[in-house]
Amino acid sequence: MIRSLITLLICCTVLPAQTITSPAGKLSLTVSMTADSTPQYTLSLGATPVAAPGRLGIMVKDIPSFLSGFVVAKAETSLVDESWDPVLGEVKTIRNHYRQLKLTLRQPAVKDRIMILTFRLFDEGVGFRYEFPQQDNLNYFTVTGERTEFAMTGDHRIFWMPGDFDTNEYKYAETALSGVDAAAYKDRGEIFTAGISGNSMVQTPIQMRSKDGLYINIFEAALNNYPAMCLDVDTKSFLLRSVLAPDAVGNRAYLQAPAVTPWRTIIVSRKAEEVLASKMILNLNEPLKLTDVSWITPVKYVGVWWEMHVDVASWNYADVRNVRIGETDWNALKPNGRHGATTARTKVYIDFAAKHGFDGVLVEGWNVGWEDWFGNWKEQVFDFITPYPDFDVKELQRYAKEKGVKLIMHHETSSSVTNYERQLDTAYRFMKAYGYDAVKSGYVGKIIPRGEVHDGQWMVNHYLRAVTKAAEYKIMVNSHESVRPTGIQRTYPNWIAAEAARGNEFNAWSSGNPPAHETILPFTRLMGGPMDYTPGIFQIKRSFYDPKRTEQVHTTLVKQLALYVTMYSPLQMAADLPENYEAKPDAFQFIKDVAADWDDTRILEAEPGDYITIARKAKNKESWFLGAITDENPRKTTVPLSFLDAKKKYVATIYADAPDAHYQTNPMAYVISRHLVTGKTALKLSLAASGGAAVSIIPATPQEEKQLKLYK
Amino acid sequence: MIRSLITLLICCTVLPAQTITSPAGKLSLTVSMTADSTPQYTLSLGATPVAAPGRLGIMVKDIPSFLSGFVVAKAETSLVDESWDPVLGEVKTIRNHYRQLKLTLRQPAVKDRIMILTFRLFDEGVGFRYEFPQQDNLNYFTVTGERTEFAMTGDHRIFWMPGDFDTNEYKYAETALSGVDAAAYKDRGEIFTAGISGNSMVQTPIQMRSKDGLYINIFEAALNNYPAMCLDVDTKSFLLRSVLAPDAVGNRAYLQAPAVTPWRTIIVSRKAEEVLASKMILNLNEPLKLTDVSWITPVKYVGVWWEMHVDVASWNYADVRNVRIGETDWNALKPNGRHGATTARTKVYIDFAAKHGFDGVLVEGWNVGWEDWFGNWKEQVFDFITPYPDFDVKELQRYAKEKGVKLIMHHETSSSVTNYERQLDTAYRFMKAYGYDAVKSGYVGKIIPRGEVHDGQWMVNHYLRAVTKAAEYKIMVNSHESVRPTGIQRTYPNWIAAEAARGNEFNAWSSGNPPAHETILPFTRLMGGPMDYTPGIFQIKRSFYDPKRTEQVHTTLVKQLALYVTMYSPLQMAADLPENYEAKPDAFQFIKDVAADWDDTRILEAEPGDYITIARKAKNKESWFLGAITDENPRKTTVPLSFLDAKKKYVATIYADAPDAHYQTNPMAYVISRHLVTGKTALKLSLAASGGAAVSIIPATPQEEKQLKLYK
Repeated sequence: MIRSLITLLICCTVLPAQTITSPAGKLSLTVSMTADSTPQYTLSLGATPVAAPGRLGIMVKDIPSFLSGFVVAKAETSLVDESWDPVLGEVKTIRNHYRQLKLTLRQPAVKDRIMILTFRLFDEGVGFRYEFPQQDNLNYFTVTGERTEFAMTGDHRIFWMPGDFDTNEYKYAETALSGVDAAAYKDRGEIFTAGISGNSMVQTPIQMRSKDGLYINIFEAALNNYPAMCLDVDTKSFLLRSVLAPDAVGNRAYLQAPAVTPWRTIIVSRKAEEVLASKMILNLNEPLKLTDVSWITPVKYVGVWWEMHVDVASWNYADVRNVRIGETDWNALKPNGRHGATTARTKVYIDFAAKHGFDGVLVEGWNVGWEDWFGNWKEQVFDFITPYPDFDVKELQRYAKEKGVKLIMHHETSSSVTNYERQLDTAYRFMKAYGYDAVKSGYVGKIIPRGEVHDGQWMVNHYLRAVTKAAEYKIMVNSHESVRPTGIQRTYPNWIAAEAARGNEFNAWSSGNPPAHETILPFTRLMGGPMDYTPGIFQIKRSFYDPKRTEQVHTTLVKQLALYVTMYSPLQMAADLPENYEAKPDAFQFIKDVAADWDDTRILEAEPGDYITIARKAKNKESWFLGAITDENPRKTTVPLSFLDAKKKYVATIYADAPDAHYQTNPMAYVISRHLVTGKTALKLSLAASGGAAVSIIPATPQEEKQLKLYK
Repeated sequence: MIRSLITLLICCTVLPAQTITSPAGKLSLTVSMTADSTPQYTLSLGATPVAAPGRLGIMVKDIPSFLSGFVVAKAETSLVDESWDPVLGEVKTIRNHYRQLKLTLRQPAVKDRIMILTFRLFDEGVGFRYEFPQQDNLNYFTVTGERTEFAMTGDHRIFWMPGDFDTNEYKYAETALSGVDAAAYKDRGEIFTAGISGNSMVQTPIQMRSKDGLYINIFEAALNNYPAMCLDVDTKSFLLRSVLAPDAVGNRAYLQAPAVTPWRTIIVSRKAEEVLASKMILNLNEPLKLTDVSWITPVKYVGVWWEMHVDVASWNYADVRNVRIGETDWNALKPNGRHGATTARTKVYIDFAAKHGFDGVLVEGWNVGWEDWFGNWKEQVFDFITPYPDFDVKELQRYAKEKGVKLIMHHETSSSVTNYERQLDTAYRFMKAYGYDAVKSGYVGKIIPRGEVHDGQWMVNHYLRAVTKAAEYKIMVNSHESVRPTGIQRTYPNWIAAEAARGNEFNAWSSGNPPAHETILPFTRLMGGPMDYTPGIFQIKRSFYDPKRTEQVHTTLVKQLALYVTMYSPLQMAADLPENYEAKPDAFQFIKDVAADWDDTRILEAEPGDYITIARKAKNKESWFLGAITDENPRKTTVPLSFLDAKKKYVATIYADAPDAHYQTNPMAYVISRHLVTGKTALKLSLAASGGAAVSIIPATPQEEKQLKLYK
């Protein structure tokens, strides 16, 4: 519902600088023209400049560019204040409140060609995009580049990873803007498809902190039919400039008027918590486009997966290196004896899921082709319908149904996307025939069509095509190694989660994720949408499986629990092996209890790279869950529970790092205590180095009110 | 059936030059090694050298090349003499008779890596290919180039068109080898996707004629999972060298051992007729891979098509230039009033087909998207299932069935092949639901996946994927703008025909096809397989439709008739409008009578660029059909009918150019006469400039034997 709409029409051919302020007056935005009639904008928070004049424009092929020579044909402003309820989300209702400035720009030298710049100014930031209306002088056109400038006003601290059109799986670096040096970035060798796109280029989103205390986040919203955006950093002037992922022939986007670009976004606040609380990126996306969403539900799941990452089992069935889909006789191959996705092992997970109340069981490595799936740029790599001889699809369908558990499909594409698209209908039909409602898709490796990249327009369209086709089949999609989400789950909530960042899996076999990693992700990757981070690793040490291995998860066990709250996702995995959970049933209780869909969320404390504390209220329940995490530094904090219903008493179960816990030396030591709490309680939490705290806060029964003592 | 097989095993690590001779001893081939252990071959016809030493080898990425450093590990020869019956063809039975030399080459410096060269020496030519067996030192590999040399021994005359990875629709040039200059080639502006691939590069196949009277044809056979081959001509040394069509990133082929390349072929004879009669390219292809072929039948068809080429009707329904599949409301568009594919117009063609005994009716422009289908590199361009509002699929299914005629589907992909592949299953299912058994597919424009080319490995695989999937649906495929065929119709005979050359359509709207064009095509494009040339144009002059237009078909009307015999295809269109045929029912009778599938074929006379005379015996009938064509020069010839059954009398209906006929000034003048003929008859034919003669020779009834006079 649009509560108010004011339109202001200014007729003029010369632009007096247009200035608008955000609904509550926090931010102001000015759009003006340079001497050569190039549009530029500035953004301020009160009197503090956020973005100095930054130019806007689009480069195109074979026809004059959309860079300069503009006059303002029309300037319209409006105020929108509406609210909407996400299908799945962090809060029940989201307010969409902004002032819009829509500038119609005309290029007299290009037969009066029109481009529209639309700015939406929220109290927490701005989104703007380029719009190309249908017109006689513009029909099909090819974008060769975008010159969107973000002119920072100082040498801000920045959390960044190298710009790369094929992967988002880097660790984050924290430097000054002047210190950004993608060319010198280490650790790229750990990533299969690493290909740094430029020496001074960084991936979006980026989170910055200015010397005068501003938290500035730059990203994009509603990425659709357009390539993803990196930023090229001028380390001297602190100007950031958009760089779009290219296609196979070096173009960036093929557009047909009418067309719009994604929104370019700047979120800014003096409080880091407000950055995390922002729903601006969701608000800039299109409303829900699915009619029936009854089948879209939060999913807590386990799966035959981590055991492959710690090398206890294998994805592949046989140890050969050359197979052919449709030709190889799988029954004739000698099994390697380590195959994870067997009927028997899957039943162990189904039993475990049924016993502990999980919705789903993911099984990776069930389908033929894993013997040589990686690194060969092989097109006919998987068929998505042929199980290995030791995986009985029909029997598992029967067994899972009997146990009330859903199997979750796995489609590794090996990035052979032409092959996947050819078979998508067949693959989805197969899923529905065997009772699967959700799929984890994977895009490991170099893309086919060869020359395309993971973050280019063609692939961006592919991901959405897979998601919208899945919606026709009432299938939820969890895409891994896909482009970073930009809020499109508002429109297609069956795109329930994505990976598109460095997930917990790296803790199994690489140099791992640094302790600060999970305190940065919510400010970067998660700004665009839920991540399937796969938390919940209880067996921190790789040496448990193999004495020769020294890798370990770079958190305490309790921090793994806290991640279920601090890393929002309506799809949450309990990623460890059933055996490891059964060894620690008291700690596992938190994972069993924690919700995955929420009526309310409070960002209590947050500092990127240091710590995050979040409390969330479970969907349609009175229960709250609180998670607190810290980086490599131990941390003590006091958390008032003032968000609780003042009239109620609750039982708080506190999962705390043991006093001597430490992510390196003693990561699995924890203490669990239960207390009565009220809205007046303030929890004193003590987090170990890379530790955490997890608290479930559930309305007390009369009996509990008698038995338990009030927290103090 | 293999009648004899002799294997000769020579164990040696140093190669004495290996020489084999063809079964009847006409040709001899020698394979030897250069000083740097590079394999090379020579070919001779009797004492006359055909190919001087030419080196062989393959370049690969990241690993040592397959160019030199070889020793011979094994040399095996064998003699094969077998025969097989094509499903559709020019003759009932084909003899496959060759001596094979299989050289296993080892590279000691590359961990004894193995490559096999297999030569098959027929009496009419040689085919050879590279084979990569499965081995420890070779699994997946990327071909970056192929160095196959064809070392011509003199400055032969050559019929050529510029090398181009995207089109075969050029006119042929006739020059000396020293005169090949693709860069200077004219007329490329007439071809949508022209992109000449190199200054001295020519398309295969090429037909040459040496000063000492050899007709030499170079091409390839069994092109599958590999790019098509062009030849780079050294105009000084007359060395021709293979150049493979690249993929989007500049590689040529992605192979997985075991793998083989297509066969490289040289056909040579002192008689041009023997080149046309050769079945070597078919013989080098794999045997039939389909089990049930009962549904693969010859097809004579008419269609809503030429009227669009002469601009009497349009493919598009509305004159707008910007539509969106799935979004545009086609009923809301204003029809342009010229749309060809209407229900009413299609019924005219169905009636016409039923009346005159044609099997099928092609309708182009029936499905939405033609408003902006070309030139925009648009991916979502067609959906292959949504008809325009004025085309009633259901009613036409009913009507065609009632009339005993099959509708032929049309799938123009606009070369958006990713889009086509996504929808192929749906499109084929739609066809079968509405009674279509055959599809004409089109690949006009630049390929999507962008960066790929029509003749590259990815597209070569696509064409075959479309054909094999069609076979699952019992659908026959006639592909236009696809890669040139290389005999694969032996293996998949539902690939009933292809265009892949400059068809008759160019005579409607361009500078046209020169008079010699149809005398060259059988020596070049048709060496690989049937062409849907779409002959039978009776209304030669474009001015008939529009007084301002000056284009005309560059043949006489009678030559159009003769093409049904001289251009072999089991799929033959009567391409003109029904109205034009109904105006000349006597001449039309030949098109009605002529067969499209044959028990026997006699190449009576042939000279590339000058003339061709062919007689063919209809499948399972005693009738013969004879076609004779000439270039711009009038021609008189005497044709003995000695191929006829000596015991029978026949009625010959001779369709001849009128004495004053001329393709430019009087193209539509013809004379028809009927005579009794026997095997002793010699027809005296007089062909006008770019004229022809067409003769049907049908066993005489007793009554005809009485009524008609013997030819003299």
